Amino acid sequence: MFSSCAGAQQTINLPAPTKSSTMTLTQALEQRHSDRNFSDREISDQTLSDLLWMACGVNRAEEGKLTVPSARNMQDVKVYILRKDGIWLYDAHANNMVKISDVDLRNAAGTPQASVKEAPLFLLLVSDQRTQERANEKWGWIDAGYVSQNICLACTTLGLSTVPRAYMDNKTITETLKLTEGQFLILNHPIGYPK
Amino acid sequence: MFSSCAGAQQTINLPAPTKSSTMTLTQALEQRHSDRNFSDREISDQTLSDLLWMACGVNRAEEGKLTVPSARNMQDVKVYILRKDGIWLYDAHANNMVKISDVDLRNAAGTPQASVKEAPLFLLLVSDQRTQERANEKWGWIDAGYVSQNICLACTTLGLSTVPRAYMDNKTITETLKLTEGQFLILNHPIGYPK
Repeated sequence: MFSSCAGAQQTINLPAPTKSSTMTLTQALEQRHSDRNFSDREISDQTLSDLLWMACGVNRAEEGKLTVPSARNMQDVKVYILRKDGIWLYDAHANNMVKISDVDLRNAAGTPQASVKEAPLFLLLVSDQRTQERANEKWGWIDAGYVSQNICLACTTLGLSTVPRAYMDNKTITETLKLTEGQFLILNHPIGYPK
Repeated sequence: MFSSCAGAQQTINLPAPTKSSTMTLTQALEQRHSDRNFSDREISDQTLSDLLWMACGVNRAEEGKLTVPSARNMQDVKVYILRKDGIWLYDAHANNMVKISDVDLRNAAGTPQASVKEAPLFLLLVSDQRTQERANEKWGWIDAGYVSQNICLACTTLGLSTVPRAYMDNKTITETLKLTEGQFLILNHPIGYPK
């Protein structure tokens, strides 16, 4: 883990994704299932890097394109990492995560399900269309579906449990992340090793 | 290809999906990209079965659960197969496709892009929530995103080209499929071998 401070912002430069899993796509599809129970075993930076890359990392560096399509190639879905140590924002192009806040937002994301709140991390999906000429919430939901399915398959491959959830404490999360018009809060994924 | 007539409906019983591709999930994610050009090479029933199973087939027969999650396990996303010989509806649980109409709807699905209309088939995704207590169009969008990402990855694995498209001739398609309240037309995927 390489940690640095750029101005006031703390940044973790993620290790390069290993891309070493031997599980076939077919096997991942056969084994995919939702699981709402998690052990408290921590997730390493390497595993987190692998997971984030599979979710929506860069797969064509020269064009800056991703493992997921998006409407008009907006690349609108932003992935926030919620952990005990705070809130981080994944930058696929820099392969790093930038600290947004020291707040532990997992409780607000997991509400009202007690079991999912035990997950060591949540990935939170927000469609950010502030820079778009016309924001289209529908496209944000579809685009988040792409990322969410990749997270489901990535977790299967990495031996992690997850479940996609649309329910959460939207008010607390919107206020904490200072989400504004053109930013749509869509899904969360509690993630951890199986209990 | 096993074809039979049940009442007035023509049914194709699909061969069992082979699940034999050796491509890893990571390789599929690395190679995934959108392609809007297609040869006129036909797609076999075996390849179509593999593709449909990966899209949203049954991966846990005893529970009747699928390769994709869906909100409240609604299993709302229905996949229509549009070909020269008509419109077919995939039944994941029966592993068959039932003919809905003799109409070739590919032109309406591909409009206005000339190149995509050359695809030998389209998969059309409709979220059917007519039987749900409360229909929620947003959930339909996200659930279609899950299926659409699986189609992208399946095509990569099967050597097929595709691109997800939200634009189409909604009026013609809605009328031809006789879609009604609670059925949301969401995405189409032209699919074929690379040109």
